[in-house]
Amino acid sequence: MNHKPCPAESATLLIHCRDQEGLVAAITHFIAAHNGNIIYLDQHVDAQKQVFFMRIEWELERFAIPAEEIGPRFEAELAQRFNMSWRLHFSNEVPRMAIFVSKLSHCLFDLLARYQSGEWQVEVPLIISNHEDLRPVAERFGIDFHVLPITKENKREQEEREIELLQQHDIDFIVLARYMQILSPEFIDRYPERIINIHHSFLPAFPGAKPYHSAHARGVKIIGATSHYVTSELDAGPIIDQGVTHVSHRDSVEDLVRKGRDLEKLVLARAVYAHIQNKVLSYDNRTVIFD
Amino acid sequence: MNHKPCPAESATLLIHCRDQEGLVAAITHFIAAHNGNIIYLDQHVDAQKQVFFMRIEWELERFAIPAEEIGPRFEAELAQRFNMSWRLHFSNEVPRMAIFVSKLSHCLFDLLARYQSGEWQVEVPLIISNHEDLRPVAERFGIDFHVLPITKENKREQEEREIELLQQHDIDFIVLARYMQILSPEFIDRYPERIINIHHSFLPAFPGAKPYHSAHARGVKIIGATSHYVTSELDAGPIIDQGVTHVSHRDSVEDLVRKGRDLEKLVLARAVYAHIQNKVLSYDNRTVIFD
Amino acid sequence: MNHKPCPAESATLLIHCRDQEGLVAAITHFIAAHNGNIIYLDQHVDAQKQVFFMRIEWELERFAIPAEEIGPRFEAELAQRFNMSWRLHFSNEVPRMAIFVSKLSHCLFDLLARYQSGEWQVEVPLIISNHEDLRPVAERFGIDFHVLPITKENKREQEEREIELLQQHDIDFIVLARYMQILSPEFIDRYPERIINIHHSFLPAFPGAKPYHSAHARGVKIIGATSHYVTSELDAGPIIDQGVTHVSHRDSVEDLVRKGRDLEKLVLARAVYAHIQNKVLSYDNRTVIFD
Amino acid sequence: MNHKPCPAESATLLIHCRDQEGLVAAITHFIAAHNGNIIYLDQHVDAQKQVFFMRIEWELERFAIPAEEIGPRFEAELAQRFNMSWRLHFSNEVPRMAIFVSKLSHCLFDLLARYQSGEWQVEVPLIISNHEDLRPVAERFGIDFHVLPITKENKREQEEREIELLQQHDIDFIVLARYMQILSPEFIDRYPERIINIHHSFLPAFPGAKPYHSAHARGVKIIGATSHYVTSELDAGPIIDQGVTHVSHRDSVEDLVRKGRDLEKLVLARAVYAHIQNKVLSYDNRTVIFD
Repeated sequence: MNHKPCPAESATLLIHCRDQEGLVAAITHFIAAHNGNIIYLDQHVDAQKQVFFMRIEWELERFAIPAEEIGPRFEAELAQRFNMSWRLHFSNEVPRMAIFVSKLSHCLFDLLARYQSGEWQVEVPLIISNHEDLRPVAERFGIDFHVLPITKENKREQEEREIELLQQHDIDFIVLARYMQILSPEFIDRYPERIINIHHSFLPAFPGAKPYHSAHARGVKIIGATSHYVTSELDAGPIIDQGVTHVSHRDSVEDLVRKGRDLEKLVLARAVYAHIQNKVLSYDNRTVIFD
Repeated sequence: MNHKPCPAESATLLIHCRDQEGLVAAITHFIAAHNGNIIYLDQHVDAQKQVFFMRIEWELERFAIPAEEIGPRFEAELAQRFNMSWRLHFSNEVPRMAIFVSKLSHCLFDLLARYQSGEWQVEVPLIISNHEDLRPVAERFGIDFHVLPITKENKREQEEREIELLQQHDIDFIVLARYMQILSPEFIDRYPERIINIHHSFLPAFPGAKPYHSAHARGVKIIGATSHYVTSELDAGPIIDQGVTHVSHRDSVEDLVRKGRDLEKLVLARAVYAHIQNKVLSYDNRTVIFD
Repeated sequence: MNHKPCPAESATLLIHCRDQEGLVAAITHFIAAHNGNIIYLDQHVDAQKQVFFMRIEWELERFAIPAEEIGPRFEAELAQRFNMSWRLHFSNEVPRMAIFVSKLSHCLFDLLARYQSGEWQVEVPLIISNHEDLRPVAERFGIDFHVLPITKENKREQEEREIELLQQHDIDFIVLARYMQILSPEFIDRYPERIINIHHSFLPAFPGAKPYHSAHARGVKIIGATSHYVTSELDAGPIIDQGVTHVSHRDSVEDLVRKGRDLEKLVLARAVYAHIQNKVLSYDNRTVIFD
Repeated sequence: MNHKPCPAESATLLIHCRDQEGLVAAITHFIAAHNGNIIYLDQHVDAQKQVFFMRIEWELERFAIPAEEIGPRFEAELAQRFNMSWRLHFSNEVPRMAIFVSKLSHCLFDLLARYQSGEWQVEVPLIISNHEDLRPVAERFGIDFHVLPITKENKREQEEREIELLQQHDIDFIVLARYMQILSPEFIDRYPERIINIHHSFLPAFPGAKPYHSAHARGVKIIGATSHYVTSELDAGPIIDQGVTHVSHRDSVEDLVRKGRDLEKLVLARAVYAHIQNKVLSYDNRTVIFD
């Protein structure tokens, strides 16, 4: 994780635990008692499963606890008492993102344009592909591009090389921008809730290969795209964002592909943005997306 | 089929056949040569399957062929030559629609409000249900309401009674307005492409029972509703219309049900309207919906 | 205001005030300290105007303060200290809604269907119109229907009679369901933020009369509907909800009217639902809509 | 206009004229009689204004009239008789597009990514800006970039230089990709229906400067973007495409700007695509967009 060369202006906690009385009061008291001004609070209770979720952000300027002690103090004073799971983020963090691609450029171009224009607070030091095709795009943006073709035989070793590259580049999370390979469970386990995929259908309809062909054959009037965290079950991980667009009998498979591209770009970008903003909490194969 | 007590102002042909050169020219010539003014023409070619589809409507005021001879003349002069399938409709037709319901009232209310306000050129002489619950709604609108509870044992005979009722009321097409019974293939064969169902999911995702529960469990961010012609395969008939709405982690199953109700009403109404307008052509389990 | 014949299960506070440190902690402490279990909390800070908004709901079962003392205690212990504006609601309240209509039935039918099916926790004892046309609809649903035709000359006295009727029926809020009269500022002042209108355009585009004609003339590709609280400035009150639908060059003004009807119904219903749920806070001619 | 180094596979006619009997029959007969196979036909009649519009495309492979004679023959045999306005296009045309930008990069990146990936059959030889900021983007894509700063005093001469550049590069149409200058009527007259602008609001709401600020101040729940042909009246030209997205009280002006960017990209790209595909016919300040 990089950091901007300035102190953090705010801290953000993402919390989940069993729902209990007094949670909100205790958490907000912890912040208020040390002179933290809350600038964001969103909470959710899953009434059925009795789980409490919260995202809370507060200004650090006059906060009495130094940044490096906030975590330990929160753990000692609150998290243990309520048996909380929690993550702490600071506003000057600049996460490092790797992009995996195959041959299609539309999502890659869109991600890089957002990165380069400064739309996102993120670094993109590494692109990995199983094909040479998009090297010119990577070079145009001045980003390291590595080609690791995958076959049944070499999958394990190629994934090991990928992990080396990811570690060398200190990568925090991975975006599969229409990467046409299935990652092994071992690979996925290394980056839990840190691999974001875009699938070109409205899941759970049309998982797997060639969803636009299937959508056309079924005669649907709406197509979709789904961004989700990758888990070991194909196209079945927690959904972060979905989008749809209308189609008609006039649209050939090629038209669906064309219309789908714009959807894929948009849905993937929204998911990556939510992830970067630390607004996604995954639980029980579903996501809580804070506003 | 009822007719308005006035001569038809226009005639509409729906045609499909193998794509061939000269089809549009021949059809439009047939109409123009007899002084018919074309007021609507929409055609579609399925390039992959080489099938031609057309909907064409023309004014009858100065048309040289009397209404009752249009069909035979079209068959003799064009349809046989090009091996066309075709249907002919007149603008003064008032189709007769039966509604099947169970316990949920939202689609029924919506259909009846459109009927009563004159929004649709249709008659609704008959409502059939497997429960008593919605009798007061039917009575409020002055429509015959018959309760035919269905069990495994009596299904065949109850469906026979339903068919009798449908025939007595001279019904042209049936709308399943959240009717919670599966019709037998024998019943369905009696009304091919004339039974419209609303399914409360974005098909092909979540067919069958309890789709909102499944959608909630899967954590989708968008829910849908699908209107389709009923075929003997459950929830797999040709799709007429679909609609979607956004949901979030905040939405319980009950919220999905509530938000879904508004979708179901709207999607069903759009499908029924397209059907009444003779704008739906079904082919190979897909629909062509003319604009 | 009616109440269900059972004690309230929960209480809800809507609060707004100048943003200050410690607000959330103080409010949640007030509830937690008296054994209230928070089941809903949504807050918003308008950073530009430095205003804090909150909706908080908690269970009353084990709450230590009796229902009738909650308001005074909250006022004394918190509201005065932070100079808060606040409203308190209980879950067993059944607000009483009047509907104003003219000649168009679609919104009226939709509202009454939701009321009758029990979709909304509301009473509808009164419908007022300036025309006789919809009396049969009101009678069909068994609701008092009063016709008060409005002319320039009689407007003041007719509005006085309307207010008498509203008071006799103990009305809490009014829904203008395509009511084609402009209410006087005096009338509006009697029901601040308690008159909900549906305007058949995407405001602020096309305010005033005949928006579908204007939309058609301008050649827009999307039409909309807007639900808002009525203020003395025409079609300029705080917006509660908006919806849109796509149109094309094929759509005549009549088609826009037809497509718009479905929008109007839906957008108005969502606004009324938000109002009934006490999820709308109006401030500075804008609304905060809690999730 | 460039052409692909291969003969055209199809020709497309765009036609409009006063509605008359026999138009479709005459046009389709012209094509069929010379062995043209119609692969696309879409027509529209503006019933109110009595205007007929058609887009018709047919295969040239066995068409009996050579490409260069189609126009003159159509003019002589049909267009004069029916007093038609018409344009003829061939499928091997590659129109040349110039992009005007100021400082914002999102639309520019999106257009160039579509161009470079081969998504569009178009050439982009020229980018003009009134600022230096986006030169690196243009260079990255290897496209001529000219900076022509505009002041009140130099506007006329700078526009003359722009026109020289456009002529030197043989430009067919211009895309204003968030170009923050108002073109003079003289400039616009040079490129009638050939300058496409993206305006960052749902026109006719919020024309002119700072629409996101105005949208925020008005408290709308939906924001939009509008792509239109530029005419001498600001933001009032014929609308080609519009898109919208939901916003809430949580969204600051900056959030509207961020959400709006994605809309602007998408709506502009759809409009440019329709233009390139020769699917736009402008009439009486409205557009017919063929499917």
